[in-house]
Amino acid sequence: MTDAFTRHRAILDRAVEANARRGAWSPYTESPSARLHPPGAAEAGAAAFQARLGRAFDLDLPGARGEVAPERSPYTGEALGVRYPVVDVPTAVSRARAAWGPWRLAPAEARVGVCLDLLHRLSTQVFEGAHATQHTAGQPWMTAFAGSGANSLDRGLEALAMAWSALSAVPAGADFARPFGPGAPVALRKSYRCLGVGPAAVVACATYPAWNAWPALTANLAAGNPVLLKPHPSCVLPVAMAVQQGRAALDAAGFSPDLLTLVVDPPEGPVALELCRHPDVKIVDFTGSARFGALLEADVRQARVYTETAGCNFALLDGTDDLDATLTALAHALCLFSSQMCTSPQNIWIPDGGVQTPERRVPVDEVVARLCAAVDAWVARAAPALCGAIQAEATLDQMEALRRAAAAGAGELARSGAPYAHPEHPRARTATPLIVRLGPAGRGLAQAERFGPMAFVLTAPSREAALAEATADAARFGAIASFLWSMDEAFIAEAELQAAVAGASLAINLRRQLPINFTAAFSDFHVTGLNPAGTATLTDAAFIAGRFRVVQSRRELPQVPG
Amino acid sequence: MTDAFTRHRAILDRAVEANARRGAWSPYTESPSARLHPPGAAEAGAAAFQARLGRAFDLDLPGARGEVAPERSPYTGEALGVRYPVVDVPTAVSRARAAWGPWRLAPAEARVGVCLDLLHRLSTQVFEGAHATQHTAGQPWMTAFAGSGANSLDRGLEALAMAWSALSAVPAGADFARPFGPGAPVALRKSYRCLGVGPAAVVACATYPAWNAWPALTANLAAGNPVLLKPHPSCVLPVAMAVQQGRAALDAAGFSPDLLTLVVDPPEGPVALELCRHPDVKIVDFTGSARFGALLEADVRQARVYTETAGCNFALLDGTDDLDATLTALAHALCLFSSQMCTSPQNIWIPDGGVQTPERRVPVDEVVARLCAAVDAWVARAAPALCGAIQAEATLDQMEALRRAAAAGAGELARSGAPYAHPEHPRARTATPLIVRLGPAGRGLAQAERFGPMAFVLTAPSREAALAEATADAARFGAIASFLWSMDEAFIAEAELQAAVAGASLAINLRRQLPINFTAAFSDFHVTGLNPAGTATLTDAAFIAGRFRVVQSRRELPQVPG
Repeated sequence: MTDAFTRHRAILDRAVEANARRGAWSPYTESPSARLHPPGAAEAGAAAFQARLGRAFDLDLPGARGEVAPERSPYTGEALGVRYPVVDVPTAVSRARAAWGPWRLAPAEARVGVCLDLLHRLSTQVFEGAHATQHTAGQPWMTAFAGSGANSLDRGLEALAMAWSALSAVPAGADFARPFGPGAPVALRKSYRCLGVGPAAVVACATYPAWNAWPALTANLAAGNPVLLKPHPSCVLPVAMAVQQGRAALDAAGFSPDLLTLVVDPPEGPVALELCRHPDVKIVDFTGSARFGALLEADVRQARVYTETAGCNFALLDGTDDLDATLTALAHALCLFSSQMCTSPQNIWIPDGGVQTPERRVPVDEVVARLCAAVDAWVARAAPALCGAIQAEATLDQMEALRRAAAAGAGELARSGAPYAHPEHPRARTATPLIVRLGPAGRGLAQAERFGPMAFVLTAPSREAALAEATADAARFGAIASFLWSMDEAFIAEAELQAAVAGASLAINLRRQLPINFTAAFSDFHVTGLNPAGTATLTDAAFIAGRFRVVQSRRELPQVPG
Repeated sequence: MTDAFTRHRAILDRAVEANARRGAWSPYTESPSARLHPPGAAEAGAAAFQARLGRAFDLDLPGARGEVAPERSPYTGEALGVRYPVVDVPTAVSRARAAWGPWRLAPAEARVGVCLDLLHRLSTQVFEGAHATQHTAGQPWMTAFAGSGANSLDRGLEALAMAWSALSAVPAGADFARPFGPGAPVALRKSYRCLGVGPAAVVACATYPAWNAWPALTANLAAGNPVLLKPHPSCVLPVAMAVQQGRAALDAAGFSPDLLTLVVDPPEGPVALELCRHPDVKIVDFTGSARFGALLEADVRQARVYTETAGCNFALLDGTDDLDATLTALAHALCLFSSQMCTSPQNIWIPDGGVQTPERRVPVDEVVARLCAAVDAWVARAAPALCGAIQAEATLDQMEALRRAAAAGAGELARSGAPYAHPEHPRARTATPLIVRLGPAGRGLAQAERFGPMAFVLTAPSREAALAEATADAARFGAIASFLWSMDEAFIAEAELQAAVAGASLAINLRRQLPINFTAAFSDFHVTGLNPAGTATLTDAAFIAGRFRVVQSRRELPQVPG
């Protein structure tokens, strides 16, 4: 039963160490370069993806009562035609609960071993997974391969290592001996058990299905809880692949596959709320809209709720010793996967007086013009690889609404965000970054997340005022990431403080090779729980604690052990 | 600022180690024996308590608008006359919030140091504290001295050590370097901050004010949260003493004393709910009634809620190699502080066929008779030292209601629970254990906690049936502790499993010198969160996680550090 644990133990131990040191580490391969993968892996992955299309997905879920095939590629506009079994929520929960007992009481090593095996299995199909993610989430190829491949597996392993640290911190037992009153000491032998709390619903999002779901998946399974994975209807395939592999890993270890199941929306409509409110569901992990996340936080009483929703991430331009490099870095983040990421910057704050450079203070107008030019350059050079596709049609509607708002006086449309022509997929749903320089009348537009390639330029009388407004918005409306460029150490220190108090991570003066909103597992903490952007910290002990509980027994020994 | 941390570091390190090993350890003195304390300590403590009576408690709370003196000794029936300042909830919360900033941003060492200093200060006034506890909670002297002294300080230190482990597991920063694409590696320096989440309300109970409150107090303060301590109106003094010492410790370390404040009920009525629902209160720790705890769990949206309420703890008598010793141990627990403890057994299950002993199976009637005789023996020998006083008049009413229910057909009154005469305090409110052997009509009486010296004997066709009913009640109505006596290893193993799944700790075959419901800090886990008895685990990482959050910043370095 613990074979998989033994087999993958070295990786687990390295991950535990990486979580503590928080430097750069990953056991997975982030690059699709042919020399880093077995011969033919890329071609086999592409073929495997093609073979999934237009047929029933091979997942034998007991209690299934029909099929749905809800996905359509944002690149081709065509239906994928992959048919998934529909299981009603009460049936799915009751099967998970029925399978629970042996899993709950199994040694942590056995559960962690299954999770390690699952991650390993997923790591062997990253090419296929990238195609599946590209044609559902709309991610560009490299994002789908690295971000939804190695980077997401990293997050799953990171949470698993956190869970293992928490579980293994509780000893199996202890000997206790002390005198009570006169007479010989009394000796007790104590046993401690870590028990899962119940079925866990993991609700994945449409644009980044793996990155948030894998940590919830491994944390829950390791803690002893059955998992019901609920994908977004437009992005089922990568999630279904994980369920398939997880069920195989469970089966191989002698456990019921029903400990991990897939819950898709039936033709009648969405079931996420029914699932999250089911009385037997004790944990909910949700990634998605702020609206639905807030509903769950306010409404779900029977379960512990972890959310990652949205925020209005800010970037503050105070000063830089290389404005072009800074704007190129910022423009890159506006383009990357068309800003359909929880760490994409949205609200770009510039002091009225402009941005300080070694030579001069560059006026706001010029900064905006050069930012738009930097975006143009990225779009011209690499739009398909960088921007990918727009996952939801509604995003294009929101862009249009912003254009109308700008025309109606909310601000000045600095960049209109027209589609780009994708060379391989002429019917791809695309857009390039739309940038509105907001006037006072449009200020409120920046106080919510605009999901997709939409950014605002905002100005304030001083950098201090800009920082105050940006962090107040973060605290009030949520933020996960924030960005600062400044050459003034005192201001940097103040911004670090204000961003921290607002619960947003701050990236300072980033501008070289790395994508500025790249978030590294084992190193970057993600979501603080200190603002409305969410409560799922993903990567610390708080993400694990409460997914299992400790129960003890103790018995008296005839005498104190020698 | 971190002087106190350095001074008490050795104790902290030992506590961290004790938490991991979970054997017997305590740095505090559990016995009042004169040779273990400074000369005159007992007399000085008694005098200090006397000096508190009939005057204003020395606590300078800004914003106070009057005084209350709500306490009356369960031993003498007389008002203590100690007057406490009343501060309205909004004022108290706003003062705590105003003081928060520097505390939140202080190094963890400084905060933990203040908590260590606070515990040390309390450890120097255990005699006074015992008198204060005895004459408010009604505890017998030894319970007040040991249980509310050393044992409660242990719990406070245990939680503090857990908090320190969690805080110190997050490094202050890390260097991160890796290549992104071709070119030199990119180097980032990352900083991680642990930030408290906001003001914390700690609501203490009437019968055991310290044991649950100290862990919440130290965990919250260490995590960076201001604390508003809300005592039960009948048991303010021991809590006020802790607030006084804590404010002194804060002041000595250069922090605002308003980080720890006392919130007493004004003459107009209780304010616990107002406090727990205040929008700026982000954490609630509650010990008290199941009814109020459930209300908080269901109702408080803006705060994370930790509860310890109540349950129907069971004791199952299957077999024993020494029935008299077993019944003596069980009777002791029924008497101890008149069962006004969260670990007191209540529902005593016996198979219809009786209790197996090496000689014979002892019939139920005989077991009940001998149990009552064992209680009689304890009462005759040590009622004042063992039973103490009844904290609330309502407990006597509930006993009377049970007598009436028994007479009305719910069961047979095996022991009526008359008062005992306290030799020193003739007006003491006392009672000895009431035991009802429930018939089928009375079964429901056992499905809720009867707080105070009330126990039920229940029978079932088999030990297996008894176990099933007892654990089903525990899972459904809550239980913190449970007890088993059996000579059959297979049945013991099954009971361990069933009790664990029901979320109740199980004590097996205890019967020697130790009180069977004694719970040792650093060793015993307490409250599992797996049944309605509460969510405050007190003694594991889950009790700490979520009281602080991690926020990071990162900046690019010019080059990878050499």
